[in-house]
Amino acid sequence: MKSNVRVIEWPEGMIHAVPGFRTAALHCGLKRKSDKPDLALLACDRPAAAAGVFTTNCVCAAPVAYSRRALRSTGGYARGVIVNAGNANACTGQQGARDAREMARLAAQAVGARPIDLLVCSTGVIGHPLPMERIRAAMPLLARRLRHRRGQGDFARAILTTDLVRKTDGCKVRMFGRTVRFAGACKGSGMIAPRMATLLGFIATDAPVVPDVLQRALSEVVDRTFNCLTVDGDTSTNDTILAFASGTHAPRLLKEARGPEYEALQAGLYRVCDSLARQVAADGEGAQHLVTVVVGGAKDDRQARVIARAIAESPLVKTAIAGNDPNWGRIVCAAGRCGIRIRPEECALTVCGFDLFKAGQPLPFDAAKVSSAMDGTEVSIVLMVGDGPGSARFYTCDLTHGYITINADYHT
Amino acid sequence: MKSNVRVIEWPEGMIHAVPGFRTAALHCGLKRKSDKPDLALLACDRPAAAAGVFTTNCVCAAPVAYSRRALRSTGGYARGVIVNAGNANACTGQQGARDAREMARLAAQAVGARPIDLLVCSTGVIGHPLPMERIRAAMPLLARRLRHRRGQGDFARAILTTDLVRKTDGCKVRMFGRTVRFAGACKGSGMIAPRMATLLGFIATDAPVVPDVLQRALSEVVDRTFNCLTVDGDTSTNDTILAFASGTHAPRLLKEARGPEYEALQAGLYRVCDSLARQVAADGEGAQHLVTVVVGGAKDDRQARVIARAIAESPLVKTAIAGNDPNWGRIVCAAGRCGIRIRPEECALTVCGFDLFKAGQPLPFDAAKVSSAMDGTEVSIVLMVGDGPGSARFYTCDLTHGYITINADYHT
Repeated sequence: MKSNVRVIEWPEGMIHAVPGFRTAALHCGLKRKSDKPDLALLACDRPAAAAGVFTTNCVCAAPVAYSRRALRSTGGYARGVIVNAGNANACTGQQGARDAREMARLAAQAVGARPIDLLVCSTGVIGHPLPMERIRAAMPLLARRLRHRRGQGDFARAILTTDLVRKTDGCKVRMFGRTVRFAGACKGSGMIAPRMATLLGFIATDAPVVPDVLQRALSEVVDRTFNCLTVDGDTSTNDTILAFASGTHAPRLLKEARGPEYEALQAGLYRVCDSLARQVAADGEGAQHLVTVVVGGAKDDRQARVIARAIAESPLVKTAIAGNDPNWGRIVCAAGRCGIRIRPEECALTVCGFDLFKAGQPLPFDAAKVSSAMDGTEVSIVLMVGDGPGSARFYTCDLTHGYITINADYHT
Repeated sequence: MKSNVRVIEWPEGMIHAVPGFRTAALHCGLKRKSDKPDLALLACDRPAAAAGVFTTNCVCAAPVAYSRRALRSTGGYARGVIVNAGNANACTGQQGARDAREMARLAAQAVGARPIDLLVCSTGVIGHPLPMERIRAAMPLLARRLRHRRGQGDFARAILTTDLVRKTDGCKVRMFGRTVRFAGACKGSGMIAPRMATLLGFIATDAPVVPDVLQRALSEVVDRTFNCLTVDGDTSTNDTILAFASGTHAPRLLKEARGPEYEALQAGLYRVCDSLARQVAADGEGAQHLVTVVVGGAKDDRQARVIARAIAESPLVKTAIAGNDPNWGRIVCAAGRCGIRIRPEECALTVCGFDLFKAGQPLPFDAAKVSSAMDGTEVSIVLMVGDGPGSARFYTCDLTHGYITINADYHT
């Protein structure tokens, strides 16, 4: 993902500020608190190129099945997506499939498009049918808000469940001599099941690109950002990342997945997805530390990724970080057990800039000093496992009493 | 592992009660508290058939490398094993290798055997050289205790680290018309790294069997017992299971890995290893529940095992159990994401005897009643994923505040 593309920061970038997009949100009654929006609409003024990456879980929710199919049947064009939080519409059988279809139809009316042009995402409790009457009742107001462009910024808040903070980011790059914008919003606190966050992400751009190429770029970028993110090692029934590109009517369209314009597209998507993935890890349930695990010197990127993931998912590594404990043994052990052949004699471990382990043995270090360095919001782990060209980076968070409280102290 | 062999219970069975074996233990100063034994010897009166299963972690401790080599060079015969707790002798470089060799030599002197006939196991903190002077100083007393058969029962206690309880079990089976005994002791609370439990297990039997066949039976049994056990998903630098069979001088020796006598050998080993594995899960760090995950109806046993393991290792499943929460969604989701193709429509889930999920949707159930049933020491999860012949069983425990306290609130 390294490139020479110049990415211009646009941290205040929101989806509705990208040319061609509008958003609207309101509270329809899926979340208990009436000040929390729970139904949101992202609309494209004209058919946009659309691409999606969906959960690989065999147990997938009705909106996932619906949106996958819709994207296929339009050849990758869409006019928007309707999203609800508070109910995942998963494990809901035939009724769930009908409800997803109806949501698309209602949203299409609001946007003035064909039902097939609208995608659907849901997140929240699983195993409960959607209270469709509330969604139906809320649609006229949602449509009005969309037309009058009111409450557009609430989109990012309406998609949240157990998240503590709203997650958005934006950037700009040059394509075909013009500045194009990227803005994204996502939700996720790392959990999978009832009453929990699952990962949903939405990226809007006015880049001029055909659907196939957008899909290719999104898949590649998600693979190195959202797919290198773990809070508790689970994937949900509803995980979905959608990208929309409104520049489909530009004079010049990117039709090939190569060259400098493609690199610019990738760079823009990467910047937004990377930022959103980091924000999810930082807001992981119970998280006190955002942890970045970098593995270098592996045979190839795939091997590096397996090692990085084993470290990022190890409960022992994550609890050590919760305690600001420079427990190099747990990190090296996690790397050693992941199925990739490593030689401890060739390993070197650095935590928060301190060298802790090299050539099979611990280095002398001041534990209090390292512990104090770990006591910030960010912890970095860098493990070199040899002199190969493979590297990978994973985002995760620590495992704390807060995680247990959220997940165990709740009763069905 | 199903067979028609009659296994006779012998729950009070200890290694030293199996004909041909003696044990001894004492406190030499590796553990801080002087009332806790930390050095132990298991001795066979005559060369016994010996077999071992070792950690697959690339970062493996010096005693693991030593014992593997010793078993190879004797062709699978041994006179015993010396075990210390409190220090893993892992990540200790060349000094560690020398120390493991010296431990074998000291133990061989005590037993009156060749150094190569003694195996070595260590467990405890990693990255610190063994304080060999304490081990050296303690050996004469350990040898005396072995000769005078004093403190033999302390073997099972001397191998513990963070374990709360001693883990032993025994049984008897008939082989070649005679009753043979099996007794085992193990330690493990599920952790891998500094100051923690790693899994060590020792099984003694007077079964008449040649080393190759003992190795084959042990590997098969460990694969379905200790290898179907998870507390936190990590494997340590020191994990070792050793089996010794003293009947090498019996008139009839089992020389083939088939037939009813082989089945009897397997049944005896299985009974002891299964019991010890259960005891480790029940004593997992912070554990409040022993959890048994059974997956049936899979394409084959391997697929069933992957699914069972995903459920057993899911932090979301484990925290739900900590809260006595019949959270079927988390269990089904964990199964759905493990890479094995399952169809929710073909799944059926039972927790503590209650049917919670079937044919892609939740069943109506009384949550309070199920929660109350989960509030015992044991929780059973049974997931059918189809009508295939594959099945597997995993032992695990719940994930509690206790786990976080033990592992995060400790400072290096």
